[in-house]
Amino acid sequence: MAKQSLFVGVDIGGTKTAIVVSSKPPAIIDRIEFRTRPERGAGPALRLIKEGIDDLLSNRGLERTAIGAIGVSCGGPLDRIRGVIQAPPNLSTWVDIPIKAILEEEFDSECHVENDANAGAVAEHRFGAGRGCRNMIFITMGTGFGAGIIADGHLYHGANDMAGEIGHVRLTRSGPMGYYKAGSVEGWISGGGIAQVAELAVAAARKKGETTVLAERLQGRKPIMARDVGLAVQDGDAVASRIIHSTAKRLGQVLAILVDILNPERIVIGGLAMRLGDALLGPARKVIQREALAPSATICEVVPAALDEQIGDIAALCVAMGL
Amino acid sequence: MAKQSLFVGVDIGGTKTAIVVSSKPPAIIDRIEFRTRPERGAGPALRLIKEGIDDLLSNRGLERTAIGAIGVSCGGPLDRIRGVIQAPPNLSTWVDIPIKAILEEEFDSECHVENDANAGAVAEHRFGAGRGCRNMIFITMGTGFGAGIIADGHLYHGANDMAGEIGHVRLTRSGPMGYYKAGSVEGWISGGGIAQVAELAVAAARKKGETTVLAERLQGRKPIMARDVGLAVQDGDAVASRIIHSTAKRLGQVLAILVDILNPERIVIGGLAMRLGDALLGPARKVIQREALAPSATICEVVPAALDEQIGDIAALCVAMGL
Repeated sequence: MAKQSLFVGVDIGGTKTAIVVSSKPPAIIDRIEFRTRPERGAGPALRLIKEGIDDLLSNRGLERTAIGAIGVSCGGPLDRIRGVIQAPPNLSTWVDIPIKAILEEEFDSECHVENDANAGAVAEHRFGAGRGCRNMIFITMGTGFGAGIIADGHLYHGANDMAGEIGHVRLTRSGPMGYYKAGSVEGWISGGGIAQVAELAVAAARKKGETTVLAERLQGRKPIMARDVGLAVQDGDAVASRIIHSTAKRLGQVLAILVDILNPERIVIGGLAMRLGDALLGPARKVIQREALAPSATICEVVPAALDEQIGDIAALCVAMGL
Repeated sequence: MAKQSLFVGVDIGGTKTAIVVSSKPPAIIDRIEFRTRPERGAGPALRLIKEGIDDLLSNRGLERTAIGAIGVSCGGPLDRIRGVIQAPPNLSTWVDIPIKAILEEEFDSECHVENDANAGAVAEHRFGAGRGCRNMIFITMGTGFGAGIIADGHLYHGANDMAGEIGHVRLTRSGPMGYYKAGSVEGWISGGGIAQVAELAVAAARKKGETTVLAERLQGRKPIMARDVGLAVQDGDAVASRIIHSTAKRLGQVLAILVDILNPERIVIGGLAMRLGDALLGPARKVIQREALAPSATICEVVPAALDEQIGDIAALCVAMGL
């Protein structure tokens, strides 16, 4: 392998961290992952990142000089220019970690840092469901709810890299908490929000004597997760279907706001949308047609992300490529 | 004057149409205006536009060959690429008027067409309160309520030139009508919306025996206009102040949504904001600080437009310059 021809992607999540290498993204040569364990602080994970990169290189008989660039994708807030991770909610012990400087010094290679919604937007735009779009919005719909905006073919960052924080917008005066705000988009529609809505729905179903597989989970004193609701929908559970239907309608309201303001050709939705597909996106699309201006609603496709489980890996590689 | 060195701007509004010429915008060499009279259809106004351009040229002893480019700014919807005006609300008789083709044929010169919110955004960005900004939003706050978005230094159009239609976003489930939608941003915050809110407020004040200068207007069987409310505020009228204060808080809610999604350095507001200044913008700024994410709210300045009455003229010249 030629010197400096390898891209290294590091996708740091609250649960796991993945490291991938590629000479021509999105094709991945090799990959490892480990548990991030944020409760231990950043130190051990940073060591595992360095060792992991070295392991991937030596697996292929390569030297560190093969590295062209490193890309780090992780949750915000972060200082993209200086490359500093600033205690994102899912990595709250990672306070002001200068990961760019750390990796550049260690590997004598340039390193770029980007938040995961933006990196995911570029990955889907370049290699996934957003290919060929000039104006596209990528929605992350996991623990949180955020957007990455592609405007006129380029990732849009905003004045201080905060663009796309649609999860923080208030949808109702009161409601489930998300992003420190009651009734916010993240409160209603994220994985965390769906879990809150589900607990109330299951309690209401019980009172009416309606059975639902979700009740078993509560009886086992385990919290209901958005994933459980999704699985229950696929099993035909009526309570779970109602929860997802009302989530879908609220999702439609939010997307209609984005359609009226940004007039994108396509909205690509990751996370839950990939698993639930039309159960979630069908009702959302109907609300968009009703709520947004007709010329904008008509032109805008709403589709699940295409990169599936690979999205984090490919997103980190896009960061390594300088986006 | 050298051949093809003159920019001609045509600003077509529902009330009046202005024509300006400039060899170096924003400096204006000469200007005329006439009443648009949309009730007569487009024909007479188009004739007056052609005659007006010729008059401005002959006033200065110039030939038509002096024209470098013509720019037309008017309300949407319009087909920007083909240059066709498609019956905007304030020019409803102008159905599919191919103004670009008409003026290009007449004057043998290129002609560009742009909607007024976008043209105003570029004018304020280049010559007004948005100078030096990389990311800016311009808000028109007149009969309607719309936005022009400058993203990474360039006007953002969206997939089919519909970006910035924030006036169509629903703010409450019910409320005053605007943009064919009850409770929309335009229903609550535009000049038309303020007039609706004012009628209710004056009726309520009367019941309580509270006096207000606005009541006189209603007794005279004249509708209350947003302008009347603005003037009454300047006269210290308590009812009018309350109307503007509640409008300002709703404006803050809307701007907070734009701040969270687009993270602009500056929001520049035309129309009513230029007249009311801090009476409107003060309370709106407070709501933004409370509702939007701190890093985005802190960086974003909210200011009145600087080009004042000249904004339409300079906007049309920016269109002539190809934006």
